[in-house]
Amino acid sequence: MQISINANRCEPSPMRKFHPYALAAEKKGKKIYHLNIGQPDLPTPKAYFEAVRSFDERTLAYAESPGMPVLVDAIRGYYSKLGVDLAPEDVLVTTGGSEALLLTCLSILDPYTEVIIPEPYYPNYTTFVHAAGGVIRALPTNPWEGYRYAKRERIESLITKNTRAILITNPGNPTGVVLDEQEMRMIADIAKEHNLFLICDEVYREFCYDDKFGVPTMARFRDIDENLVIIDSVSKRFSACGARVGCVVTRNQELQAALLKFCQSRLSVATIDQIGASALYSVDQDFFRVCKAEYQRRRDTVISKLRKIPGVVVEEPMGAFYVMASLPVDDADKFQYWLLEHFDYRGDTVMFAPGAPFYETPGKGVNEVRIAYVLKQEDLERAMDALAMGISQYQRLVMKVKPVAVD
Amino acid sequence: MQISINANRCEPSPMRKFHPYALAAEKKGKKIYHLNIGQPDLPTPKAYFEAVRSFDERTLAYAESPGMPVLVDAIRGYYSKLGVDLAPEDVLVTTGGSEALLLTCLSILDPYTEVIIPEPYYPNYTTFVHAAGGVIRALPTNPWEGYRYAKRERIESLITKNTRAILITNPGNPTGVVLDEQEMRMIADIAKEHNLFLICDEVYREFCYDDKFGVPTMARFRDIDENLVIIDSVSKRFSACGARVGCVVTRNQELQAALLKFCQSRLSVATIDQIGASALYSVDQDFFRVCKAEYQRRRDTVISKLRKIPGVVVEEPMGAFYVMASLPVDDADKFQYWLLEHFDYRGDTVMFAPGAPFYETPGKGVNEVRIAYVLKQEDLERAMDALAMGISQYQRLVMKVKPVAVD
Repeated sequence: MQISINANRCEPSPMRKFHPYALAAEKKGKKIYHLNIGQPDLPTPKAYFEAVRSFDERTLAYAESPGMPVLVDAIRGYYSKLGVDLAPEDVLVTTGGSEALLLTCLSILDPYTEVIIPEPYYPNYTTFVHAAGGVIRALPTNPWEGYRYAKRERIESLITKNTRAILITNPGNPTGVVLDEQEMRMIADIAKEHNLFLICDEVYREFCYDDKFGVPTMARFRDIDENLVIIDSVSKRFSACGARVGCVVTRNQELQAALLKFCQSRLSVATIDQIGASALYSVDQDFFRVCKAEYQRRRDTVISKLRKIPGVVVEEPMGAFYVMASLPVDDADKFQYWLLEHFDYRGDTVMFAPGAPFYETPGKGVNEVRIAYVLKQEDLERAMDALAMGISQYQRLVMKVKPVAVD
Repeated sequence: MQISINANRCEPSPMRKFHPYALAAEKKGKKIYHLNIGQPDLPTPKAYFEAVRSFDERTLAYAESPGMPVLVDAIRGYYSKLGVDLAPEDVLVTTGGSEALLLTCLSILDPYTEVIIPEPYYPNYTTFVHAAGGVIRALPTNPWEGYRYAKRERIESLITKNTRAILITNPGNPTGVVLDEQEMRMIADIAKEHNLFLICDEVYREFCYDDKFGVPTMARFRDIDENLVIIDSVSKRFSACGARVGCVVTRNQELQAALLKFCQSRLSVATIDQIGASALYSVDQDFFRVCKAEYQRRRDTVISKLRKIPGVVVEEPMGAFYVMASLPVDDADKFQYWLLEHFDYRGDTVMFAPGAPFYETPGKGVNEVRIAYVLKQEDLERAMDALAMGISQYQRLVMKVKPVAVD
């Protein structure tokens, strides 16, 4: 029996290898601050649970394969407020943004075709692209440029006759980079000129910490209707990751037809969760304001704490709820093991996501980390203090460099 | 922009093309009896909804990628009652049996590798196999042999050096064929001798209408641990299709590792539905007895009505809730259109699933249909009367053959 080539090309979750060490640390009584996963701690709007509880059919039946009309309408209403008019057939409800990405890759990638993705990128993109036999062409960025990737020459230099798509996350995970209007336009132009799909993962759309960005979406550019594929989800927007409700938005009818075939084969997205998700879209705009303000406060805390650590290279992220930073350590992986096994600061230690799995290019990201600011203010402060102390001790004890004072 | 070869190899749902005609018929006031989809009408156990309503976390978070421990344990408990001991790592919770099948295909198929499937088969298998670039080698059967496929020479004659797996549905959809112990053993032996995966879709396991079959599962054969992949789901077993909760059961650790990579990439199955599904597994055994008795009564009705229609070829199905039958019409597709557009019997008409899409072999199944007996007794009787009358009128008016009296 043989495992498929494409499955072998995928990697297990880089987080799992730390799991036994985290358990052991907790057994020793250490408190671990989890800055390693993008699981928001903010409450899910009550409307979700109320809608779920009010479900009163006798039989829990399949929903419509392209999504329940009530949810499709709710999504269209939400986009309409963003100035984007969608027909019902432009929206395909999926089991989270994850399924939206997997089905998009299966629909547009043949073996050995290429997708251009700015690195560092969300590591699960690798699995979706590889599942379809595709290849990632990484668009390089640098910490000292704040990971900004919207450079026409750099992008165009990666286009080959095998390129099928450009895939971006805006606002970015793990970098928090947000494209401005001109950059969005430029990338849209490249996709159009080169006849490429532009897959735009916009699940963090509401989390932009500079008013100039507004609530950005590529869907406002109507001249790229044939190119554009928006990946969307309720997970981050409404702190409802466990609903597994997302969607693909595209006006490319040929792509919609291909996606629909896959959607029909898996029959439907969970019925009750679609009903819950429909209710989410009716929450007051105030909800977004409150969430954004909270994340912004946390971002400011993380950035101000990181900037006080000598040797850290970090730019203030403009969106999402992640910071990518270069740490003054030899290897973020080794450092993470050490933090779990040999370190605590007043009983605390910390987990982050080591940077290397966010890169396609070998050797890159080795001393970088992604920090998800999904903990409440006071925990975040303690976590960052533990990180600062950890770096200092690790430098002294493991790297054997002269210790640098931490404020 | 290009759609992928594999997406182009998939077919849209064969049911969709009738949808506008069904709507038009309903507009004219016709009542349509839907025997075309496997959506059970029996009530979902209340335990599901109670568990869902009692969920009281503030934030709806991701669940564990391989499945929530409470659900994995519930599944293990259920299998244990079938005499099958499973370790937690033998079970991977999926978004329905559909995701279980898609991820299995992605994990074991490379482009141009082959899967042997007895035809007629569940049409969505095509999409799952094609998504991974695989090829279906159809194992032919015949209506007059009751669609039985467990013939060693026939199966072995299809094995090539590209064969990766044998995929069977037991009890069968669309045929209702149930394998006896000897046939199961023989197929297990073939998989073992030829080093093939044996993918066994057992989602209808509880619905066997002869006590000799018990509750069949290949998982009792412990000598094929490396070969066997069980596809399972709560959808049919508990009338809970809309939960989208299924699982892969396999003791092949290499395959588990491959599947887990895909499961991690899509983060988790819907949290609330997993909690609901866990509760389903604690329902009283009486639930299965009552459901099975109800389906058996319906099967008997359908079979006795079909047998009274001259020219129909049908064998009594032993399991699941489908009958595959050969009708005395020239083309089941044409007949279906006609039933919707030009026919009614006391205001009623009927929809079934035309047979051709259940076949890989061109031309087969053209005058066959799949009937899902998922309506209550009195509706089923009216539906079958309408079908009988429809056949008679269609023969006379469209096929221009001498009418045959219907009892």
